[in-house]
Amino acid sequence: MGFTEMWQDLLPIGRGPGGGYRRFSWTAADRECRDWFTQEARSRGLALERDRNGNLIAWWDVEAEPGAGAAGMVASVASIAASAVAGDAMAGRVRRDAVLTGSHLDSVPDGGAYDGPLGVVSALAAIDLLRDRGVRPRRPLGVAVFAEEEGARFGVACLGSRLVIGAIDPARARGLRDGDGVTWAEAMAAEGYDPEAIGPDPDRLSINCFVELHVEQGRAMTAPVGVASAIWPHGRWRFDFTGQGNHAGTTLLVDRRDPMLPFASTVLAARDAAERHDAVATMGKVHVTPNGVNAIPSSVAAWLDTRAPSDAAVRATVAQVREAAEEAGGRHGVEVALAEESYTEVVDFHIALRDRLVKVLDDPPVLPTGAGHDAGILSAHVPTAMLFVRNPTGVSHAPEEYASPEDCLAGVDALADVLEELVCR
Amino acid sequence: MGFTEMWQDLLPIGRGPGGGYRRFSWTAADRECRDWFTQEARSRGLALERDRNGNLIAWWDVEAEPGAGAAGMVASVASIAASAVAGDAMAGRVRRDAVLTGSHLDSVPDGGAYDGPLGVVSALAAIDLLRDRGVRPRRPLGVAVFAEEEGARFGVACLGSRLVIGAIDPARARGLRDGDGVTWAEAMAAEGYDPEAIGPDPDRLSINCFVELHVEQGRAMTAPVGVASAIWPHGRWRFDFTGQGNHAGTTLLVDRRDPMLPFASTVLAARDAAERHDAVATMGKVHVTPNGVNAIPSSVAAWLDTRAPSDAAVRATVAQVREAAEEAGGRHGVEVALAEESYTEVVDFHIALRDRLVKVLDDPPVLPTGAGHDAGILSAHVPTAMLFVRNPTGVSHAPEEYASPEDCLAGVDALADVLEELVCR
Repeated sequence: MGFTEMWQDLLPIGRGPGGGYRRFSWTAADRECRDWFTQEARSRGLALERDRNGNLIAWWDVEAEPGAGAAGMVASVASIAASAVAGDAMAGRVRRDAVLTGSHLDSVPDGGAYDGPLGVVSALAAIDLLRDRGVRPRRPLGVAVFAEEEGARFGVACLGSRLVIGAIDPARARGLRDGDGVTWAEAMAAEGYDPEAIGPDPDRLSINCFVELHVEQGRAMTAPVGVASAIWPHGRWRFDFTGQGNHAGTTLLVDRRDPMLPFASTVLAARDAAERHDAVATMGKVHVTPNGVNAIPSSVAAWLDTRAPSDAAVRATVAQVREAAEEAGGRHGVEVALAEESYTEVVDFHIALRDRLVKVLDDPPVLPTGAGHDAGILSAHVPTAMLFVRNPTGVSHAPEEYASPEDCLAGVDALADVLEELVCR
Repeated sequence: MGFTEMWQDLLPIGRGPGGGYRRFSWTAADRECRDWFTQEARSRGLALERDRNGNLIAWWDVEAEPGAGAAGMVASVASIAASAVAGDAMAGRVRRDAVLTGSHLDSVPDGGAYDGPLGVVSALAAIDLLRDRGVRPRRPLGVAVFAEEEGARFGVACLGSRLVIGAIDPARARGLRDGDGVTWAEAMAAEGYDPEAIGPDPDRLSINCFVELHVEQGRAMTAPVGVASAIWPHGRWRFDFTGQGNHAGTTLLVDRRDPMLPFASTVLAARDAAERHDAVATMGKVHVTPNGVNAIPSSVAAWLDTRAPSDAAVRATVAQVREAAEEAGGRHGVEVALAEESYTEVVDFHIALRDRLVKVLDDPPVLPTGAGHDAGILSAHVPTAMLFVRNPTGVSHAPEEYASPEDCLAGVDALADVLEELVCR
């Protein structure tokens, strides 16, 4: 099945009536995505590995000798079946010096079709292309599907890759809750995983390199395919504004402790601070209690997402927003609490690897991004690079997210060229 | 069962872990409240009428002659059973020239215990007191429980009383939807009501008068019991801010059409406008789409509640807020739409009736309120009055809502005195 057929196959899964995707970890839509991936891996004779942290990897293993291709394929299929029956990810072979590619299949709420899936589908299509070219890898080549990259259900982005490198305590990960109070441990157990087994997985890190292809998310590219230089430092902060719930009709203005007012000031302050520090700052999520038309809220919880080219600029932006929130809270008799939920320092991708990609792709644009990725998480332990596919409108995390079919196929070609270089030399 | 026992009995129904109430129409909590009321009516030998609009009335009918009390009571109990079996509210007798009291049992989200239930419990306790005094009414006395007074589930406040007087089109009422898309028609049908039968009910309006006792909701009283002069005009407006959903990390500030920003400006403008026009204005409810930490929202819907002593002040406040919203929307490339969801003009309660209450109660405080009530809806068709019970903190629509036991019992005494005057003269 070629790129276009795979893409069409995946397209309806988890898509809502407005065209946006809700592919949240361990939901029915997520299971359908995983089943789709499993099927695509099987149809190519790739060995499917379910790692213990909820990530999937489809392996194209090194073939023993010329002519053994068909037998190798049968062995791989058998190993998939064994692994599926045993349900034991640790039974998977350790593949040292492997080249890993892939991305993720989960989405933000009402997200687009490309963020994540483009990297997975392109990786499978690139393997087809390499086989058509008669390439015989000297290193194992894996296509990874990382779990909970968006953090949309459990609040911590790149949770699957963070667990692999030990960037999050397994006990904390097990206890992360979704909006309904379901924990990560409960959700993964319901899908047949053992939540007690999650945690650092050094075997995953004994690889040669990781290359993630991803749709670009700004409007930064004038060529179909580019190479990433860096990921901006970024983080999430939670503000809790606590006032006094009351009647909207009978409570005098002077008697009010309305948390919606300092929240509103904070939204505007975030924009001002971002402009001042050449950052971006967004308050896109808010929970109001009780959220009734005729009730002054008792509390408002709101989240700030901030990113900038430097750690200093992010910190300065958040400090300015905090000051404004506290000042407005003080004026309205509203308590303000601030908690840092996550922070990722600047990521500079592996320079030698990046230079190899630039050479193979004949001088593509090289650019930074404000978006976090599993590649950013792994880059602390593994030589890592990213390819970007052009996004003509710059829209992402929304149903309008788009890359042209021509650019997507150019991305597959580029990824195949890069992988051929990496698995054969 | 006396006031305190009835109060304790009702207290746990629909109460959440934080102490706030969620007694929404046609939910399990609402059914429990209705069952409680039915039981209290039966234990007093009152004839329970389920009207066709979802309201309940427990009738103390005029007794035929001295000594016939017990027989009358038996007859009433029989009529309850017949009505319950037939499920046909129109089978209820028409009771012309009756005196009606009562209030409602539904709540706002996380509301207090007193708003509504105090008027119902006090009415039943007042009947006990009148019987203890040996009062024999010359007019039927009814205790009403109006449906969906808060509009918390279906969005239109005082829906039960509005239907009775024909202030809302029955087809529109049937089609009102809750947050899950369930219609008023579906919800009432699930509880055994015929949604096709709802609509104007002139027989309900052929009564002598309606007196509603309610907890006061500001901090306006220095005596335990007061009498209402007027209800401020008030209304609800919905703002829809439509921007462009996008990625929080990669979208340049200049490329953003973030609807959260004009929403925030509108929240602050509502406060400014209320201060300027001696009104109150509240934005207590907001829905953000998709409401993700790392997504610039595509749209924000937010509700404005505005009240003031005069229609002109309400209109001027809303006009100023609208102007600010549109100005901010224009600056951020965000479309702004405004819709009036409900509007209730100033209610001046029936002056002769009010004067009778003031005389009976020996010159209590007489005060207006910013809160809407079923009494305000009925006042257009029936002589209507209200009694207020003191609220020492002024908190309402929140778990901290409170009236002291002494003040509650003073309210029962006052209501009994007023009803004795009204049913005997």
